[in-house]
Amino acid sequence: MSDINDLRNKMDEVTLQMIKLLKTRTDIAKEIGEVKKNIGKGVTDETREENLRGKVISLCQEIGLDEKIATKFLNFLLNESIKVQSSNKQTHLSIFLKAKELEQQGKNIIHMEVGEPDFLPPTIVKDALEEVFDKGFLKYGQAKGMPIFREALAKHASKKFNVDISQDNIIVSPGARFSIFTAITTLLNPGDEMIVIEPAWPAYKDCALNAGIKVRTINTSFENKWEPSIEQIQNTINTNTKMIVLNYPNNPTGKILPEKLQDQIIEIAKKNNLYVLSDEIYSEYVKSNWKSVLSYNYEKSIVTQSFSKSHAMTGFRIGYAIADRKIIEKMAKLEALCLTNVSEPIQYIAMKALEADTSNNNKTVQDRLNILIQKANEMNLDIVVPDGAMYIFARVNKEGFDGVQFANSTLEKGLAVAPGEGFGNYKNFIRISACQDEKTLIEGMNILKNIMSEDQ
Amino acid sequence: MSDINDLRNKMDEVTLQMIKLLKTRTDIAKEIGEVKKNIGKGVTDETREENLRGKVISLCQEIGLDEKIATKFLNFLLNESIKVQSSNKQTHLSIFLKAKELEQQGKNIIHMEVGEPDFLPPTIVKDALEEVFDKGFLKYGQAKGMPIFREALAKHASKKFNVDISQDNIIVSPGARFSIFTAITTLLNPGDEMIVIEPAWPAYKDCALNAGIKVRTINTSFENKWEPSIEQIQNTINTNTKMIVLNYPNNPTGKILPEKLQDQIIEIAKKNNLYVLSDEIYSEYVKSNWKSVLSYNYEKSIVTQSFSKSHAMTGFRIGYAIADRKIIEKMAKLEALCLTNVSEPIQYIAMKALEADTSNNNKTVQDRLNILIQKANEMNLDIVVPDGAMYIFARVNKEGFDGVQFANSTLEKGLAVAPGEGFGNYKNFIRISACQDEKTLIEGMNILKNIMSEDQ
Repeated sequence: MSDINDLRNKMDEVTLQMIKLLKTRTDIAKEIGEVKKNIGKGVTDETREENLRGKVISLCQEIGLDEKIATKFLNFLLNESIKVQSSNKQTHLSIFLKAKELEQQGKNIIHMEVGEPDFLPPTIVKDALEEVFDKGFLKYGQAKGMPIFREALAKHASKKFNVDISQDNIIVSPGARFSIFTAITTLLNPGDEMIVIEPAWPAYKDCALNAGIKVRTINTSFENKWEPSIEQIQNTINTNTKMIVLNYPNNPTGKILPEKLQDQIIEIAKKNNLYVLSDEIYSEYVKSNWKSVLSYNYEKSIVTQSFSKSHAMTGFRIGYAIADRKIIEKMAKLEALCLTNVSEPIQYIAMKALEADTSNNNKTVQDRLNILIQKANEMNLDIVVPDGAMYIFARVNKEGFDGVQFANSTLEKGLAVAPGEGFGNYKNFIRISACQDEKTLIEGMNILKNIMSEDQ
Repeated sequence: MSDINDLRNKMDEVTLQMIKLLKTRTDIAKEIGEVKKNIGKGVTDETREENLRGKVISLCQEIGLDEKIATKFLNFLLNESIKVQSSNKQTHLSIFLKAKELEQQGKNIIHMEVGEPDFLPPTIVKDALEEVFDKGFLKYGQAKGMPIFREALAKHASKKFNVDISQDNIIVSPGARFSIFTAITTLLNPGDEMIVIEPAWPAYKDCALNAGIKVRTINTSFENKWEPSIEQIQNTINTNTKMIVLNYPNNPTGKILPEKLQDQIIEIAKKNNLYVLSDEIYSEYVKSNWKSVLSYNYEKSIVTQSFSKSHAMTGFRIGYAIADRKIIEKMAKLEALCLTNVSEPIQYIAMKALEADTSNNNKTVQDRLNILIQKANEMNLDIVVPDGAMYIFARVNKEGFDGVQFANSTLEKGLAVAPGEGFGNYKNFIRISACQDEKTLIEGMNILKNIMSEDQ
């Protein structure tokens, strides 16, 4: 007993020494902040972190400490905030909210900033709403979702992707966003690392930061047709990397990866034992061939889906994830904790919506995208012609162009577009949505044209 | 530039020193593990951690380091799980799920384990379901909830509690559970402490554990009519205490606090600058006078409400929280991250439901509770007569009685009840719900009686 007490006292002593160093570290950080204010930005933080990481790994080898423990610890030190970052970065969402405010003041705004189809949900949804009360879908249910609905979703996916999926592989969630939140939060630990290929929907990064996960960004470029290189991915992976996020057809670029490249990425993920979180909510909106991550039968893949885009049911908040049952069980625990279950009336309605033929939506959006593409070409905007989704991601070729400033100023003229910066380091880009009828889109693009020529 | 490089080198040096100490710490931990194996368990980890926490906090005061940063750091070192605890504790929910399984196998089960009213939602809900499509409540909206709905809720609460509440004080959530989750997760930091008065609904504790919050439990007893003493509360508060959870009318006991005691608790909370999270979802089910925490106008109070119990809308998942607008903004950030917004059709339906007269529900449940009370008395079960809610929390006076075992065995006989252990350290208690019609309740209580006399 005295032995163990001695050890425990030693342990406490070491802990207190670490706290003292934490104080020293905090003080130095403050000093650096002060100096930075005066001299402007120096070496990027990213490069510095890489450097320090290298030093830490050498030290580990020298003193015989598990690299994993050490780098997790380092990430904790570097990644101070584990709360939702109140970043001031403006995204499509902040522009949308500003636009809504202006509308309440009586202004007319053309919404080309959000990915919200303007068409109605299938009429079967209206019927389902009328049935739900009498059919009694009104009570508590399983956290993972209603068995009949999960069964229907499993059949749907099995047929569509020619894979073998059962209801045990499905978790229903209030929107795909919630599945992304639970997957990242429950599968990764604070200090783990996750790879995001940018430009990307900001939610992946936000969910990771909220869970204390370190995000490593791979920047793709217009010049490379928004394709990451295998080298980029391989260089970003280290012992702490636990997940890679894919999103094809991509928001905001509309890109689909060449099949061979996608195959290679999955191979790398398998070799490195990474989770693959594949957000496939735009899979109904494709021009060319597209291959679901489901078709790789990789046991560490999580595919998220939603009724928002495919069935124009954004406001209903209903989506789902498909994964190995062990992953589903983990996600279900957090879902039970937060929600008890997903709204049963909404689950019933979505189950009925699954019966609707929505193939026309794809054609509608493709036609609209073609209009945007044509107009963009006329206006000298640089775009990679999208393979799918519902956006064009356009570079504005103008000295010192700032998408955020621009998006705020177009609002005044009655047009909402999304600044590229919301999707990564893409200051001179804007995202334009094809979620209005053709006439409105043309009107919107004309406003854009006028603003841009005025600015000359 | 050389200045900043010097500082950065110093910072790296400190970091590497910390890594070395981490190595030492890891080695000591291994040694302790070895010794433990040989001598069996020593001092509990709980007490040790408390001790160390105290030392760290003193050190912080001494060297001028932010306690928050230090305790967060300490939690990281102690490797406190910030994941959902996969506790094996059986609760009303696990019994409910077992009962559902048995039903799918064809067995008849009387549900006296869950707090789910057997009656239908108001008929206005059926009408609202039929209107929602044509009225167009189908699209994305604000994370906090639809302004017209929040306005309606603010008016409703202002009138009912004679307080001044605006829509800025309201956040809509998919069930009160989600508001509890966001309040605990966003207002507290890992390492902070929260007080729960048991017996209690397990979600408070679960949400806290999930967020790395330390829970301090106050046990109340049947003998003291489920009232905490002021001394108990005062002795539980320390510098790390940031929140106290109240839930009156209480689940599972039906208790309402004497007004003077409640006043004193709020006073203590104010004096210690604690958040008061008051779960008031049973406020529509009261026999005697009951005072909402809203009436104290305390800026650090968060009141949660739901349509589940009051409007028999459990499966719809719709609730809300009322708090200072700064608190609402914090909660809204996490809600936006997880959900974008709450299902708009469901918000519309709940808004309409608010117009319904549900006062009859209270009478129905009171009548049923009276039957349970009478039957419990006949059976020699000890109960404190509930002041409200929809349960009796009964002590079974039997040597070695184990509520979990009992609840599992009654399932075989076609009756589901909730084991007391799900609500805290109450092994010899069971919770019985008044959520069936009178005939079914009598039938259920008779099954209970038979089982108990068989066991004699």
